[in-house]
Amino acid sequence: MSPHQVPFDNFYSVIPAGGIGSRLWPLSRADAPKFLHDLTGSGQTLLRDTWDRLVPISGADRIMVVTGRAHRAAVESQLPELSDPNIVLESEPKDSSAAIGLAAAILLKRDPNVVIGSFAADHVIRDIRGFRRSVREAIAVANAGFIAAIGITPSEPTIGFGYIHCGKAIDIDDAPSAVSVESFVEKPDFETAQAYLASGDYLWNGGMFISRADVLLEQLGRAEPELLAGLTELAEVWDTPVRDAVVDRVWPQLSKIAIDYTVAEPAAAEGRLVVVPGDFDWDDVGDFASIAKLHSGGRKSDLAILGENARVLADKSTGVVISQTGRLISLIGVNDIVVVDTPDALLVTTTANAQRVKSVVDALKISGRNDVL
Amino acid sequence: MSPHQVPFDNFYSVIPAGGIGSRLWPLSRADAPKFLHDLTGSGQTLLRDTWDRLVPISGADRIMVVTGRAHRAAVESQLPELSDPNIVLESEPKDSSAAIGLAAAILLKRDPNVVIGSFAADHVIRDIRGFRRSVREAIAVANAGFIAAIGITPSEPTIGFGYIHCGKAIDIDDAPSAVSVESFVEKPDFETAQAYLASGDYLWNGGMFISRADVLLEQLGRAEPELLAGLTELAEVWDTPVRDAVVDRVWPQLSKIAIDYTVAEPAAAEGRLVVVPGDFDWDDVGDFASIAKLHSGGRKSDLAILGENARVLADKSTGVVISQTGRLISLIGVNDIVVVDTPDALLVTTTANAQRVKSVVDALKISGRNDVL
Repeated sequence: MSPHQVPFDNFYSVIPAGGIGSRLWPLSRADAPKFLHDLTGSGQTLLRDTWDRLVPISGADRIMVVTGRAHRAAVESQLPELSDPNIVLESEPKDSSAAIGLAAAILLKRDPNVVIGSFAADHVIRDIRGFRRSVREAIAVANAGFIAAIGITPSEPTIGFGYIHCGKAIDIDDAPSAVSVESFVEKPDFETAQAYLASGDYLWNGGMFISRADVLLEQLGRAEPELLAGLTELAEVWDTPVRDAVVDRVWPQLSKIAIDYTVAEPAAAEGRLVVVPGDFDWDDVGDFASIAKLHSGGRKSDLAILGENARVLADKSTGVVISQTGRLISLIGVNDIVVVDTPDALLVTTTANAQRVKSVVDALKISGRNDVL
Repeated sequence: MSPHQVPFDNFYSVIPAGGIGSRLWPLSRADAPKFLHDLTGSGQTLLRDTWDRLVPISGADRIMVVTGRAHRAAVESQLPELSDPNIVLESEPKDSSAAIGLAAAILLKRDPNVVIGSFAADHVIRDIRGFRRSVREAIAVANAGFIAAIGITPSEPTIGFGYIHCGKAIDIDDAPSAVSVESFVEKPDFETAQAYLASGDYLWNGGMFISRADVLLEQLGRAEPELLAGLTELAEVWDTPVRDAVVDRVWPQLSKIAIDYTVAEPAAAEGRLVVVPGDFDWDDVGDFASIAKLHSGGRKSDLAILGENARVLADKSTGVVISQTGRLISLIGVNDIVVVDTPDALLVTTTANAQRVKSVVDALKISGRNDVL
């Protein structure tokens, strides 16, 4: 191992692998969530990409995956190195506060000095070295007692991400780029996003948080004391034979809330959150427009084609085709088109409408069409 | 039967059912040509619609269908009333001169005074009474020794049809609207089509020709004497046991040429062709734009949905969806879209590109993809 690949001491990676990715329907489904797809053309799933990115940082034996019981087999098949103590199964989805909080509580019980970093299972980062540099600084921030967030230097005025409004530089050993946080801000409109980009004071919120487990849980407990109590109760018995019985009783009662609201925003308001600006590439691949962009390298004239057996005959067409069927797909004169061809559902839209895909999923839920969700 | 439904004496309808309809791929295929589809939402195929339209004109026992051997079973299934002497099977496609000429030659041998009218198997006409009025006049024209064409009064400056340039009124008993023909003209550009519409002197060429069989064959023989000789040889033996052997020998040698070039245009040039203007609705449903228009009633805001088991969830979308699979098809924010969903091929284009579908078929032919043609 080169010095760059030595795992950091006391550090544990946590991968919450929970979200379905509704805006990627009909590709993403309840039984085939976004993290189980290859959306980059890497030849492997986003989950596996995430794992491979984290192994040099924490070591394969120090990566914990939190996922739904229904996805256990798929996750284990993707990550054969994943050891049993490192897989945490949710009996039902409870959002990121419970998922990351449970991992933190379990790991804290096993090691009172553990620092954890949570990294989504379904984001794309290609600059592994840049990512590692930022994680190293974030760990230094965490060791100083803060909660660290990694923000991404925006490359364009994107409206699809939340932003972090940065404050002043903070003097922390081994974290030269650390800055304080003024606030977290929700997805902006385009003009606002342009202003953010121009100001240089805003970073994309990449949803990556690094913290001592005890600090994170203490912060969480102030916003959600009952949630913390439940997580602590679970952690107490996690490595014992009564785990399942306690999970079945406690987990369903837990609050369903994103960690942004229970940890990141309150910590920012109290001056306990520090951001490390990352200058690596990052994308949450949240919709089909992201996928098209990811594959086109920013060129408008491209047609991205995903799918092992994709057979596409295109004439004067741009956008993205995702094929799961092996059918011949012919496009003629359609621009910025999105075609997602699956065995039981077909989506035809445009990249400009990519965010509206979720509304279809909502309509299908309302009409009870769970067979295609 | 009302007086309007009494079949005309000596009249025989001929339905050439040959064309695949390449611009309707992947709906139309070699083994599922256009005339075997329901493109109108009538609940039955275009062929059956055509048959039903002709029965009151010639009687069910006086309609002859010329089709490929491969389509025999499908045609007979659609037309159980079709009697054996009235089905003419081609061993390979030979275009309309051979198809209609053979029908004319067979019928002439059976009845020297027969008048025939040829009507495509895959056109749409809904105004049955208007159609019958025009056919009645065309039969009067044919009985006067001319070849009659039925032209359609244009309702808009269409570039997708050929036109008939009309001349002066001609005095023929029982054909008060008959006019002479200056010329047949090919599909025009849009400006020319607008000028045609404004002038009032141009009709759409509906490809409907009515003539005494002997007159038609005499005309054809002047342009293509060898073709006439072949057709006559076939007709001589048609109702005998040696038919198949003679077909196998003679048919492959016949010229492959449209009747427009062998009969209609030469007859027009010689003053033997007379046009009866029809003021009924007519469409050759030549491409998906035609289908969209047919179903929208001219409104731009509509989404036409065809297919028995079509399940479409559309949001702010217009155009046409044709579904053969029963898959859920979701459209979001796509306008004038054409989606044709078949088990082995999917087409996504726009109504503006409808004419270019044929180029896909050509590309597939070149690359030997007969499995989807």
